[in-house]
Amino acid sequence: MEKPAKTNFEIQPLLKKRWSPRSFTDQPVSKETLQRIFEAARWTPSSSNDQPWRFIVGQKGDKTWDMIMETLVDFNKKWAKLAPVLALSIGKKISDKNGRPSKTFMYDVGQSVAHITFQVMQEGLFIHQMGGLDTHKAAEIFGVPDEYQVITAFAIGYKGEPNLLQDDFADMEKSERKRKPIENLVFEEEFGKTSAIFD
Amino acid sequence: MEKPAKTNFEIQPLLKKRWSPRSFTDQPVSKETLQRIFEAARWTPSSSNDQPWRFIVGQKGDKTWDMIMETLVDFNKKWAKLAPVLALSIGKKISDKNGRPSKTFMYDVGQSVAHITFQVMQEGLFIHQMGGLDTHKAAEIFGVPDEYQVITAFAIGYKGEPNLLQDDFADMEKSERKRKPIENLVFEEEFGKTSAIFD
Repeated sequence: MEKPAKTNFEIQPLLKKRWSPRSFTDQPVSKETLQRIFEAARWTPSSSNDQPWRFIVGQKGDKTWDMIMETLVDFNKKWAKLAPVLALSIGKKISDKNGRPSKTFMYDVGQSVAHITFQVMQEGLFIHQMGGLDTHKAAEIFGVPDEYQVITAFAIGYKGEPNLLQDDFADMEKSERKRKPIENLVFEEEFGKTSAIFD
Repeated sequence: MEKPAKTNFEIQPLLKKRWSPRSFTDQPVSKETLQRIFEAARWTPSSSNDQPWRFIVGQKGDKTWDMIMETLVDFNKKWAKLAPVLALSIGKKISDKNGRPSKTFMYDVGQSVAHITFQVMQEGLFIHQMGGLDTHKAAEIFGVPDEYQVITAFAIGYKGEPNLLQDDFADMEKSERKRKPIENLVFEEEFGKTSAIFD
């Protein structure tokens, strides 16, 4: 099953193809593929080149995968059990540059996971990010220091068919993808006034 | 001048080619190109599909470009004056889903600018993001409502040669790109223990 973005303007093919499935086949992701995926994250831009992103990565069958699974909310546990790779994104709250709280570490970490996403799509895999996890529990069981914050979890794998999922998730898997109209997102002169780009 | 990432593992060509130049030629960016760039942002994934990203976009010579320029710190004003496009990223702090403060809006907006980045590279353009701006002034002059937060500015254009810049910026333009070792970023079992992916 494919769910390409129904775009009004043509976008890069990997971006068009990208979506967040919940069904994954049991095919593992090779070590070499994971090396490239996290190398892509490493080259993300960041404020003052602070590079505040850290990751914890588990592969199905190992201890880390089980530990990450334990931190997910029940809703996510039900489908993420299919995923061959589970990972956590973590941000450093303090800037390396000046030792003060970073205003943009969440923004920077979000970018790094987007860079992971592009490499994941390049590899023929898919990624599904999750805000639904107990970030405090995750920090505790992995011994994350106080100056860091667990932000999201994400599942990576080869996309499976909806019938691998429970009925309610299978329905969600087939539902249409929706976005706000571009006119409500891109402005000029004042907030809320649509940019003339879209006239 | 090219500054491809000196990667240890091969990554997607647009990610490898990407960097954040300060020199831009005076070639404008077409309306159609900008349509595709912001369409790419529209299809970014987000927590609960909240889509908390908003953008204000100016093109050199218009009122919005001048207004964004006014919000930049002096350091950025000096080089960003070359950029044919200046934009602001803005995040909605309150989740549409439940009316409560969003824990991930900064992360989501960071992702959307990364999606913009990927489309920008696809178009043969470059982008340089900036944390150095007066976000409160920007909120004031553009009438950004309280439930939104101005996060970053960014410049987009066709890359120019370093000699278009002042001497100090020209030197920075030619300096080597650096990143932390991957071993310090990707862990398993406990925070700080390098993932066996990199053994």
